[in-house]
Amino acid sequence: MPDNMTTRVQADALKGFCTEVLQKLNVPEEDARITADVLVSADLRGVDSHGVARFRRYVGGIQSGIMLARPDVRVVTETPTTALIDAGAGLGHPVSYRAMRRAIGKAVEYGSAFVSVRKSNHFGIAGYYAMMALEHDCIGIAMTNAGRLVLPTFARESMLGTNPIAVAAPAGGEYPFVLDMATSTVPMGKLEVYNRLEKPMPLGWASDETGAPITDAGRAMELARKRKGGGLLPLGGAGESLSGHKGYGLALMVEILTGVLAGAAYSELIASEAAAEGERKPINLGHFFCALRVDAVRPADEFKASMDDLQQRLKNTPKAEGQNRIYIHGEKEYEEAERRAREGIPLNQKVFADLQDISGEVGVSF
Amino acid sequence: MPDNMTTRVQADALKGFCTEVLQKLNVPEEDARITADVLVSADLRGVDSHGVARFRRYVGGIQSGIMLARPDVRVVTETPTTALIDAGAGLGHPVSYRAMRRAIGKAVEYGSAFVSVRKSNHFGIAGYYAMMALEHDCIGIAMTNAGRLVLPTFARESMLGTNPIAVAAPAGGEYPFVLDMATSTVPMGKLEVYNRLEKPMPLGWASDETGAPITDAGRAMELARKRKGGGLLPLGGAGESLSGHKGYGLALMVEILTGVLAGAAYSELIASEAAAEGERKPINLGHFFCALRVDAVRPADEFKASMDDLQQRLKNTPKAEGQNRIYIHGEKEYEEAERRAREGIPLNQKVFADLQDISGEVGVSF
Repeated sequence: MPDNMTTRVQADALKGFCTEVLQKLNVPEEDARITADVLVSADLRGVDSHGVARFRRYVGGIQSGIMLARPDVRVVTETPTTALIDAGAGLGHPVSYRAMRRAIGKAVEYGSAFVSVRKSNHFGIAGYYAMMALEHDCIGIAMTNAGRLVLPTFARESMLGTNPIAVAAPAGGEYPFVLDMATSTVPMGKLEVYNRLEKPMPLGWASDETGAPITDAGRAMELARKRKGGGLLPLGGAGESLSGHKGYGLALMVEILTGVLAGAAYSELIASEAAAEGERKPINLGHFFCALRVDAVRPADEFKASMDDLQQRLKNTPKAEGQNRIYIHGEKEYEEAERRAREGIPLNQKVFADLQDISGEVGVSF
Repeated sequence: MPDNMTTRVQADALKGFCTEVLQKLNVPEEDARITADVLVSADLRGVDSHGVARFRRYVGGIQSGIMLARPDVRVVTETPTTALIDAGAGLGHPVSYRAMRRAIGKAVEYGSAFVSVRKSNHFGIAGYYAMMALEHDCIGIAMTNAGRLVLPTFARESMLGTNPIAVAAPAGGEYPFVLDMATSTVPMGKLEVYNRLEKPMPLGWASDETGAPITDAGRAMELARKRKGGGLLPLGGAGESLSGHKGYGLALMVEILTGVLAGAAYSELIASEAAAEGERKPINLGHFFCALRVDAVRPADEFKASMDDLQQRLKNTPKAEGQNRIYIHGEKEYEEAERRAREGIPLNQKVFADLQDISGEVGVSF
């Protein structure tokens, strides 16, 4: 099969496969189902970098023991509108799902709530959890820290993760607003694409070991992974001329609301997965989940009507020369999810082969 | 006095003057004091564009009747952890001060809280309100929408304000973390500086009426003010290559959390002040204030120790070539405030003359 061939697989088949594999690895059924749903939702929404392409990482994490299949998850502290959950080094997805559900339950009762999680692992796409708030007429917020890949402004070594921010707000006839963004200019996945195509990156995506912006994606990836200097640039790029200090500030805000607030690891204290695997120590990521109940402020119907109106106004704005469409955040992903639900999820050769390997290793048919 | 001359004035003298002027305009004493304190705090922190340089705007707003000196401020809805306040078209500062105080009070009792404000006016620096949370060992968040100046990605007309996000988190021996950022690449004040110096702007700050980025600051200012096409670019610049859609998404998130959630005006429904003055109609801005109590999650002392540690790690990161310092957000402003508290606040000739004019008009000695 040539490099650019893809195989289309139905979402349910993929979910079933991932669930079964995780169960074979001793993950409880509900946890396995949640994890599979988060992963395949990313694929459905077109966020291929965060879908089953990462399944190997979670399978490997459980096999090597740095992610526990049956962790001892504990509620450490709780108030009417907050909670701190210790994920016990389990998979990030099930604990995050339950933490967000808890935040929503509290917000439905009290108006607003947030739940912090520590000793966790990568939780997939942040948007999944923020979107859980939508059916409860809440605004949802989800954030996580991550292994360091991003340079603070004026630095030449990475100290922060790509630290995503996700915010979801319900609408009426329009799609909900779903912002789900890394606070770096681009995520690593974008460098991988440019490297594969041997295309020079725009200046402002990554810097070399002196802190100077570079266009060679392959070199930037190598540097970022070795963590020997260089790395991704915060939103706004290097220095302050295009306000890279704002992207750095947003990344630091996420680090504080997730790692520091939860008492999890932060910055260089987050072990890289490779290092963690060597030492068998948990990565200890922190997450932050927040829900705000819309009708604590104004009737949800009125809010949604305003959301529709605002979206229509934005879409109807006169377009820049050469452009014919203005998007609302989440719109492309909703459209893609509808398409892929019909046509199946396109898996590239590498991902497909990887899933076949897992199938063979674990003994679950794919 | 030549153009670049400045006169230094002590903060207390400036506050006293502004308070007296507002009282002469029939603003109640406490409201006048709060407004003066917010304004002069901006000057102390070095955010000159948001300090007494804007005093004329508030004085004029009250004189023309679009800002009411004695508004009918009402709590519209309230739950244990939320409230919606109608500012009655009064000054933005006093209602915002009280809204944030209310959010903090609720967070201290319940763990987390947010307060929305509608029918308000410009509230000065967002950071002031976020920072109010610090002495209560809370994390503070403040946002507002504003008259449209910023282009959505792929648009050629402005539809969103510079919509600032402010987040403050307490620290121990280090300064607190205070992020206070417009979601545009730069605020209008930055264009004014480049225009004065006749310096070309970096590409990525503003676009012309076709939606193409330009370097002529004077032209960009004129376009933005006429709102006939062109305007400021969101953080990340034009198009998607440096992720301008993320800055656009952050600006839209703020528009939703402030204007839409509060039931205030949003996007092009926000009257420009000039238009409002002609029609004597309120601008109807929306604000959002949120407080999260740190020790609802972990002991505040531990949190602060981690904040200090994280800050020190960031500051000690090896520097990019040609750089010798890495900053934490808020640090420059705290240092400037200490300097200006000692040495006085430098007012440029134009601002000084403006305050003298107000002094003469209103009959308060300066």
